[in-house]
Amino acid sequence: MVAQLQYINHKIQVKPENEVLTFTFDQLLLQRGGRLGPVTLAYETWGELNATGDNAILITHALTGSSHAHDVEDPENPKVAWWNPLIGPGKYFDTSRFFVICSNIIGGCSGSTGPSSINPLTGRPYGMRFPVITIRDMVRAQRKLIEHLGVRRLAMVVGGSIGGQQALEWAVHYPHLVDKVIVMAASAAVSAQAIAFNEVARQSIMADPAWLCGDYLPGQGPTTGLSIARMLAMITYQSEESMEMRFARNSVQREVVTAPTFSPELGGRFDVENYLYYQGDRLAQRFDANSYLYVSRAMDLYDVSEDYLSLDEALRRIRSQILFVGIRSDFLFPASQVRWLAEKIQAVGGNAQYAELDSPHGHDAFLKEWSKIVDTLQEF
Amino acid sequence: MVAQLQYINHKIQVKPENEVLTFTFDQLLLQRGGRLGPVTLAYETWGELNATGDNAILITHALTGSSHAHDVEDPENPKVAWWNPLIGPGKYFDTSRFFVICSNIIGGCSGSTGPSSINPLTGRPYGMRFPVITIRDMVRAQRKLIEHLGVRRLAMVVGGSIGGQQALEWAVHYPHLVDKVIVMAASAAVSAQAIAFNEVARQSIMADPAWLCGDYLPGQGPTTGLSIARMLAMITYQSEESMEMRFARNSVQREVVTAPTFSPELGGRFDVENYLYYQGDRLAQRFDANSYLYVSRAMDLYDVSEDYLSLDEALRRIRSQILFVGIRSDFLFPASQVRWLAEKIQAVGGNAQYAELDSPHGHDAFLKEWSKIVDTLQEF
Repeated sequence: MVAQLQYINHKIQVKPENEVLTFTFDQLLLQRGGRLGPVTLAYETWGELNATGDNAILITHALTGSSHAHDVEDPENPKVAWWNPLIGPGKYFDTSRFFVICSNIIGGCSGSTGPSSINPLTGRPYGMRFPVITIRDMVRAQRKLIEHLGVRRLAMVVGGSIGGQQALEWAVHYPHLVDKVIVMAASAAVSAQAIAFNEVARQSIMADPAWLCGDYLPGQGPTTGLSIARMLAMITYQSEESMEMRFARNSVQREVVTAPTFSPELGGRFDVENYLYYQGDRLAQRFDANSYLYVSRAMDLYDVSEDYLSLDEALRRIRSQILFVGIRSDFLFPASQVRWLAEKIQAVGGNAQYAELDSPHGHDAFLKEWSKIVDTLQEF
Repeated sequence: MVAQLQYINHKIQVKPENEVLTFTFDQLLLQRGGRLGPVTLAYETWGELNATGDNAILITHALTGSSHAHDVEDPENPKVAWWNPLIGPGKYFDTSRFFVICSNIIGGCSGSTGPSSINPLTGRPYGMRFPVITIRDMVRAQRKLIEHLGVRRLAMVVGGSIGGQQALEWAVHYPHLVDKVIVMAASAAVSAQAIAFNEVARQSIMADPAWLCGDYLPGQGPTTGLSIARMLAMITYQSEESMEMRFARNSVQREVVTAPTFSPELGGRFDVENYLYYQGDRLAQRFDANSYLYVSRAMDLYDVSEDYLSLDEALRRIRSQILFVGIRSDFLFPASQVRWLAEKIQAVGGNAQYAELDSPHGHDAFLKEWSKIVDTLQEF
């Protein structure tokens, strides 16, 4: 009886504390030219890898995310880990059955090699001497990590937004290594409008005199510019509908934060402005501005057909069962474009499905609509 | 025969040159408190006022517009005057029959009193000591102008965007002075999303160190911040659909202008980025940054029901025949909200109509889709 309990305990063993691990390898040849090295990936895992090395799920994060998709000390709280409610024993990403991995992307600033890392050639942070990186580069680094962890093949790769681009790239670039793929709120390539929004955000960062062409000191970065960039991004992550529900034209009740520029207010502050100031401020405290430039650019540059003769040729490589999830109110990655890609894969003979999240919350629904997400993924 | 020709010539007389006139009055009491004075309005007129003073059409301009809606020297070119193709002898706004007036709004920077005007109390530009102004203030200043011009009643007030807000305010505030009103791409009040976009633009301007809390010298303003603000605004004036048609993911062929921040490019420049840099640069050359702050704020603050007990009470005041024109692809002033307002007015007994411009070009369709505009307005 005791032995059996121990055995059960072993099977659902979780680490008692949150622990960010790192894995470093020599170098990565980059899709757009040049090489990056040494490369460190910060990662976290939950659950245990089975003896056959085929029960791993790789979760890929979005623009400003990190490896901390799940928090074992506060496992129900979505504020402390970005996909917390979906991960854990008995959850959709069931850590009692699966070995769940999430690593910070290269270019990021949460432990993986990015523009704020030390450039071994100079002994100082890379800044804008960091090379242009792509979604494929992120995926190829993840490939080295899972090999290091002893994973023989992935049971699933799953992510939303830029994480969805990574999941899609896994399906195309490593077709024989992945059983199932879930691409949420991402498509074959972003639209001109999405590139445009990203570029306004980047210009806001680079217009901040504290940016210093990327050579700011740690903790002295362009927080004003990064705040403004985040304010804009937060609009595109929501929808006209959800902002109307949350804020409408209400005046602010409590000013929680100053505007990024400490600027005078003309005729009072709207609730929606207060919310955006707060979101801008929060990101500026925790995120590296140069990482924002590089990772948002990777999002713009991603085109699943790059380096193939045609989109069809790229999509024909896919061997995984692949689920696309569009969000009804998403205007950054419109649901129609997500569906279009799923149908394209079906048309070239792939095993693709499409499901739509009926949410008013825009792009960010993949970080909010927990029960709807589970309902949507459940049948996959 | 000669006499008759002279008579005809007289009827279709147009000024041979473009001439911006000014009218100055003592002061304007402002809706949000305080007073502004003296107040100058820069204006242009085309055609002649009839003896009964009732053939005038007032055209109201949008955020960065001016009195130059029509150019008599280059009357077909939409690039030299913002509503050129709609105005002139025999055009929809027929200057052989109507006395067409367009004045620069207060708060603007094309000859009317605005933040770049000299503050009589200090002898220096107002800057941020300019008072908060509203759409109603703009309209009340226009009321003084038309009185000065001898107009007894307006045959029509017409405008799009902020110009549409002014036209609507005319209908509500001066119901007995206007026969017909056309409100294009404007609604009862902007959404939280539109306020949010405007605020990001304003923060970009105020984050520019050259802004100097609004006290920059003429010609030394925050052109980088204003360029970025304009880049963002240009996205909201178009649509995902039209940007995809125009730019898609094409790389730039010819770099016509540097980015506002002269920043390094990460992986090349997209055509859409080049376009936005160009638009930003153009506006920064011609427009005053503080005017941008004040006028965009007037747009945010506008709510047709302000100072009335209810929206219904405000709308019941309308006596004019009023046409609302929504644009199918407009996401700044969604067509559904324009239609909603027209139906609201009908519901309280007003003579309102709604027509929809079936254009992919977003909000800016009211400055582009000449033949569709004429078709839509023709029956009114």
